[in-house]
Amino acid sequence: MPIDLKDNVVSRIITLTSDFGKKDGYVAAMKGIILSIAPPSIRLVDISHDIAPQDIMEAAYVLKSSAPYFPDGTIHLSVIDPGVGTRRRPIAVRHGTHWFVGPDNGLITLALDTDVADEMVELNNKRFWRATGVSSTFHGRDIFGPAAAHLACGAGLQELGSPIDRMQPLHWALPIADNQGVRGWVMHIDRFGNCITNVTEDILTSDRRGREIKCYVGNAILSSIHQTYADVMPGEPVSLFDSNGNLEIAVNSGNAAELLGIVKGSPISLVFVDERAEAYASNLGASV
Amino acid sequence: MPIDLKDNVVSRIITLTSDFGKKDGYVAAMKGIILSIAPPSIRLVDISHDIAPQDIMEAAYVLKSSAPYFPDGTIHLSVIDPGVGTRRRPIAVRHGTHWFVGPDNGLITLALDTDVADEMVELNNKRFWRATGVSSTFHGRDIFGPAAAHLACGAGLQELGSPIDRMQPLHWALPIADNQGVRGWVMHIDRFGNCITNVTEDILTSDRRGREIKCYVGNAILSSIHQTYADVMPGEPVSLFDSNGNLEIAVNSGNAAELLGIVKGSPISLVFVDERAEAYASNLGASV
Amino acid sequence: MPIDLKDNVVSRIITLTSDFGKKDGYVAAMKGIILSIAPPSIRLVDISHDIAPQDIMEAAYVLKSSAPYFPDGTIHLSVIDPGVGTRRRPIAVRHGTHWFVGPDNGLITLALDTDVADEMVELNNKRFWRATGVSSTFHGRDIFGPAAAHLACGAGLQELGSPIDRMQPLHWALPIADNQGVRGWVMHIDRFGNCITNVTEDILTSDRRGREIKCYVGNAILSSIHQTYADVMPGEPVSLFDSNGNLEIAVNSGNAAELLGIVKGSPISLVFVDERAEAYASNLGASV
Repeated sequence: MPIDLKDNVVSRIITLTSDFGKKDGYVAAMKGIILSIAPPSIRLVDISHDIAPQDIMEAAYVLKSSAPYFPDGTIHLSVIDPGVGTRRRPIAVRHGTHWFVGPDNGLITLALDTDVADEMVELNNKRFWRATGVSSTFHGRDIFGPAAAHLACGAGLQELGSPIDRMQPLHWALPIADNQGVRGWVMHIDRFGNCITNVTEDILTSDRRGREIKCYVGNAILSSIHQTYADVMPGEPVSLFDSNGNLEIAVNSGNAAELLGIVKGSPISLVFVDERAEAYASNLGASV
Repeated sequence: MPIDLKDNVVSRIITLTSDFGKKDGYVAAMKGIILSIAPPSIRLVDISHDIAPQDIMEAAYVLKSSAPYFPDGTIHLSVIDPGVGTRRRPIAVRHGTHWFVGPDNGLITLALDTDVADEMVELNNKRFWRATGVSSTFHGRDIFGPAAAHLACGAGLQELGSPIDRMQPLHWALPIADNQGVRGWVMHIDRFGNCITNVTEDILTSDRRGREIKCYVGNAILSSIHQTYADVMPGEPVSLFDSNGNLEIAVNSGNAAELLGIVKGSPISLVFVDERAEAYASNLGASV
Repeated sequence: MPIDLKDNVVSRIITLTSDFGKKDGYVAAMKGIILSIAPPSIRLVDISHDIAPQDIMEAAYVLKSSAPYFPDGTIHLSVIDPGVGTRRRPIAVRHGTHWFVGPDNGLITLALDTDVADEMVELNNKRFWRATGVSSTFHGRDIFGPAAAHLACGAGLQELGSPIDRMQPLHWALPIADNQGVRGWVMHIDRFGNCITNVTEDILTSDRRGREIKCYVGNAILSSIHQTYADVMPGEPVSLFDSNGNLEIAVNSGNAAELLGIVKGSPISLVFVDERAEAYASNLGASV
């Protein structure tokens, strides 16, 4: 049963994520349309508009790492839309106490880590599109923005369009773990040059935790996982689980991506030293 | 007769456009002053602060392409002000149901596409300037921000200063059209490298519409106008009318400005092929 | 006695300053947490998130030049935190009618120009930290954001933690002035390339004011202090007191830092010409 959040309308939040940049008027046009529809109490919060053009994975990672901290009832509008004007569906979904609005191109799937949200519709009820017409190149302004605004006004998801069964499937590559080690990859490099990997804290299950480890990434070999950046000297590399539970490679007071030669997609290998680490490492083409 | 928007004060919106950037404290100082004057219900929406320093035309284009989407009663504050401290007038105008506040240097004229708005005043009533004094280098904080805030409080335009007859004249270059073709120029390049021209949909009047066309721009020759980016293969150039009705040159999933060698100010020529296009094109120095 | 600003809660403002950038989800995560705690009427205003990574002085300068323009009761949240996860204290202070929240690393000290604010506490009451746990790398989200939000809810400073005696001492270098001249340095270069120095208007005391002056900075020699940029021709360098009272070196319609070879930290010398200026200047290694 859909939750009733109408009581909450007075303080509804819409977050915005896009690859529109902040130089042009695109974000503002989308906000103008939203504010023309939504009640005065609506609050707009930018997540990021500096997503690399058409980079669905980057947008999904950024959304995934910030959306959970917003209050119940928040509507997350995400417009990274290389397929604008094609037959890709515009969708809106509810998952738990949050809504997500955007193109059905895998972005929401990745952010939620599932193809099937609690409620899902295709935004095909034109009554909730921009009143004066829909362009073929700017659905953020003409379809997605209005949908988010109508949700903020208290419209039910089912009013906005027809139910769908699942979203476009798209999934994060998973790290591979066995008794000898773990292989993953760098999925995001942040402003500081910190390299966030897809290796999560829970992969170090109880029988693995506490075993001596070596970590191979870029041109660095690290021999332990620390708690915080300042556990090593300034300029030294450090690995730690970040504030979302992902293994992160950083340099204290420095830029790890630059200093260690790491790019998005770089592999990372954790090797348990007590399990013939050197043989394993040499299989990886790394030297211990 | 000036419209009465005082009922609307509770939800008044002020948009902000500047070349201040987001690194320094200038935008925040201006917002601080506005929030010190305006009622708590005021809403501030950034249009862009990344306008190239002192680029009045870029600011006007960005404002023009986003302001119309805001609700009635919106106040648009635009501070690109190379003449700060000189005798250029600070002005506020009402045009239709929107207000515009900024220096009288052509920015508002360009955005409205007229020298004469419905109501226009020079901001010379010092009672509405920053209470503790006006600097000679930061009128955004000391004159324009306070004026916008007082309008949001319900002050009438005529209270802010003396009526003026017209604004500083400044006009967009218009495309030239005849029976053989249309010549225009690229007036904005957006974050994606899409090139927006001053050729608008209405220039293709009924007797021109449907005629075979060739489009010369940068190092590309395009032979039709499409509906959306994905009408061509990724990496291929495409021309289409954008979401504001301007002819735009793009590359599907790519950067048209970089790939086609187009810069702001580049010419674009549309030639009707059935009208001795080759002769015309060779006059343009292009080869068919 | 602490001032009572609880009446003001309805319109409380939280400003945000960080080196998080706008590309990643860090700012949004911090805002999400704040909006989960604070009342719907709270207003979030970004000062800057583009502070150079870990540059405490840049952040302090930007905060100092914008915070004073905000209304009474504003809470300034500033998270530039190279020492996150170490024993540096998280603090919140009240100074006059404003609050400041952030790490005790000198940032707030510099912005307030004192080690001792009117009220100061260490944020050690875990009841006001993020409810579900505190990471060792993101105190903006887990400690500072929640503290600011609770202040906005009307919590008293003393509830958030234990009183402290003084903040981490850190001070701006002061210019040196004598009867022959003034030596200072460039402490900030803004988006336009304007160079803001630590020489303030009040250093030109009554007996110095009006004396003929030469100003040596970068590769320029300037022979007077003007009122505004347009007092010189476009492309010409100009010195003037900026909108906060600091001596600024600019180029009319140009970038002073680039054109005059000035970087942050560059020295500036003002020499009173009637006081054996040439001898003094040659001591500086400059030629008249």
